Amino acid sequence: MTDAFRGSQSGNPQSRIDRYVDQYAARAKGMVASEIRALFAVAARPEIVSLAGGTPYVAALPLSDIGAMVGDLIATQGTQALQYCTAQGDAGLRERICEIMALESIQAHPDDVVVTVGSQQALDLLARIFIDPGDVILAEAPSYVGALGAFAAYQAEVMHVAMDDDGLIPSALSSALARLAASGRRAKFLYTVPNFHNPAGVTLAASRRQEILEICQRAGLLVVEDNPYGLLGFDSEPMRALRADDPEGVVYLGTFSKTFASGVRVGWAVAPPAIRDKLILAAESAVLCHSSFAQLTVRQYLATQPWREQIKEFRELYRERRDATLSALPTLMPSGCSWTRPAGGFYVWLQLPDGVDAKAMLPRAISARVAYVPGTGFYADGSGTQFARLCYAFPIPERIREGVRRLASVVEEEVSLRADFG
Amino acid sequence: MTDAFRGSQSGNPQSRIDRYVDQYAARAKGMVASEIRALFAVAARPEIVSLAGGTPYVAALPLSDIGAMVGDLIATQGTQALQYCTAQGDAGLRERICEIMALESIQAHPDDVVVTVGSQQALDLLARIFIDPGDVILAEAPSYVGALGAFAAYQAEVMHVAMDDDGLIPSALSSALARLAASGRRAKFLYTVPNFHNPAGVTLAASRRQEILEICQRAGLLVVEDNPYGLLGFDSEPMRALRADDPEGVVYLGTFSKTFASGVRVGWAVAPPAIRDKLILAAESAVLCHSSFAQLTVRQYLATQPWREQIKEFRELYRERRDATLSALPTLMPSGCSWTRPAGGFYVWLQLPDGVDAKAMLPRAISARVAYVPGTGFYADGSGTQFARLCYAFPIPERIREGVRRLASVVEEEVSLRADFG
Repeated sequence: MTDAFRGSQSGNPQSRIDRYVDQYAARAKGMVASEIRALFAVAARPEIVSLAGGTPYVAALPLSDIGAMVGDLIATQGTQALQYCTAQGDAGLRERICEIMALESIQAHPDDVVVTVGSQQALDLLARIFIDPGDVILAEAPSYVGALGAFAAYQAEVMHVAMDDDGLIPSALSSALARLAASGRRAKFLYTVPNFHNPAGVTLAASRRQEILEICQRAGLLVVEDNPYGLLGFDSEPMRALRADDPEGVVYLGTFSKTFASGVRVGWAVAPPAIRDKLILAAESAVLCHSSFAQLTVRQYLATQPWREQIKEFRELYRERRDATLSALPTLMPSGCSWTRPAGGFYVWLQLPDGVDAKAMLPRAISARVAYVPGTGFYADGSGTQFARLCYAFPIPERIREGVRRLASVVEEEVSLRADFG
Repeated sequence: MTDAFRGSQSGNPQSRIDRYVDQYAARAKGMVASEIRALFAVAARPEIVSLAGGTPYVAALPLSDIGAMVGDLIATQGTQALQYCTAQGDAGLRERICEIMALESIQAHPDDVVVTVGSQQALDLLARIFIDPGDVILAEAPSYVGALGAFAAYQAEVMHVAMDDDGLIPSALSSALARLAASGRRAKFLYTVPNFHNPAGVTLAASRRQEILEICQRAGLLVVEDNPYGLLGFDSEPMRALRADDPEGVVYLGTFSKTFASGVRVGWAVAPPAIRDKLILAAESAVLCHSSFAQLTVRQYLATQPWREQIKEFRELYRERRDATLSALPTLMPSGCSWTRPAGGFYVWLQLPDGVDAKAMLPRAISARVAYVPGTGFYADGSGTQFARLCYAFPIPERIREGVRRLASVVEEEVSLRADFG
């Protein structure tokens, strides 16, 4: 650092900690590390039962078979797998993606698909093309933390819409739209996770789906249907996607993170042509193109490995863990707690007794060697203090029971502390 | 589409082509497909000698060895390689990245490194954290098209700074800063490609590097040093990076796209701590985390394969192709043309005879079965019409000569057309 440059800084030594502090974009002001981030580093320790991160159990994959498959892919198609591809993504993979979406009654053409770096990139790209600072986005209450983060990065204002055990409540959506219209505002889109919601664990009832679509159509409101867990239902066939009934009104997001491997970071968006074109341009600006290596690995996996049977195996595995969670909770948790009963996916949404704050309790839970995600992260408006998200996907059932036991003790202690000290 | 929704649209049938046309963010207005994009699809045909895309010659890699290595990686470390990782990137890979940067005299700690989806994502994340609409970015004239695209996506105003055969001209940089200061404005950063510039093919002389750094330090101007080609010099040891002499004033960007494989999309940024922290948060919002699969593949490649020898092989290969280009050009091109003489990297920057417009000429060149990138894409201000970027990295020398021969005929035809019809 030259003296001349030093001279251009303020005399306050604090200001020198980050010499660029006055040069960041307005949107960067909101980029602050989560206050629970440090705790999660601790939660990764093996002695802790982590019900926190939404971590799929990739150890269930046939690793030797996949290794042999990838080895063969590089040896025989390496010049394609190790080279750039288009920003839209590999055409062969996009064909396979259409076959997968057909399981949810979606009829899409490979041209409608944009491959993304996980669903998270699709959320980022949608936010990028739709959100000006101050724009309103409608989302369930609670909603996926990664989506809220992507919308916040573009300075959106999220308006939450109530859910119940059957998912998003149509009348609550209508009310939200009426409130917006009354104030002369308009939402850019409705963001929804209809199946096995993250974090709420509930599913949008079939009987509500048409009604939700009609409300959105009447309002000219785009729907963003985020569906990472749709093929991981425990009790029935995959539900009919919202996109199946309104190709022009819905952008559908899918991912291989939970049905194959989160580490390949391959997701996708299906969108009406004009939005798709903008997504491709935005993707090119953001990353040039996705990894051919990852895309061709998924393409090859779908072409040569028993992926349907693998999804069935994942479903059985997660069902067993869901069952372990739902049988441990009523036995162990103190009165005043309640929780959702997911029919698929990864998450139980736990309501703590009145007055118990899940974020304040987290350090004590980690001391007791159990971790979860406090509810406030899933709301844009600071609510959710009384809630915790439990993810049962990664620990084996015995560890889940032990984790719930530890959590129950911590909650009991909180409750009795409150009783003693008010 | 319900009637009610139809009713909310304007009566003009044109407006129904994209029903969301009035709902995009302001930044999306600038997202338009390049007018030469369609031509590039044609340029990919095998009968065309493409001197257009900056495509590395990945066929030179030992594909069987890499295949075996990746197969082993998945079989033995699959639970890590197929799982999520942190937004900052794999710690082992970041250690290796520091070893590589040491070849350019950079002393960095793995904590300073953020792994990105190619350098393009690093450019996007930097733009995201620094650029408000209307902010000024300084960049060489010409500059890398992907960087200009990333800056444009955040509505930056790029001010070009002149180069000569020794790279960025220090006095031109000083003048640009003085002009900005006189108008009460300030640039957010200087974007520079010091080694084997894309597209100009020139290298910032060692004698200028300290001067450039001092000018930036005096102005309190951050430097973004983008260095994809630094290890691909044909004649000498890698040059000392700008980052080596100013760790607090330079963000350095590197990538494995040209030294290993573009298809893994693994790049990185090294930044002062406050900027690094913002890059990590921005990366998390953009893609959650990069692919463990891609990152561990690169980590394993660096740990188990002869990567230094491979880079040497790439250097020899590209040197031969550069030589083929530089020997064909004076023999074949008509008078009035001139070009740069790269000492490394992928590109020759060709100036066409007065009055010849490279973009207007491109369709005729493609008819003559040769492709290049017109110069205008490398300027934010519409200049560059008389220039073309030739990339010699992909075709074998014989094809390069044939490509230059075809291009020379097209240029000659343009010149004589102009002579006949003015």
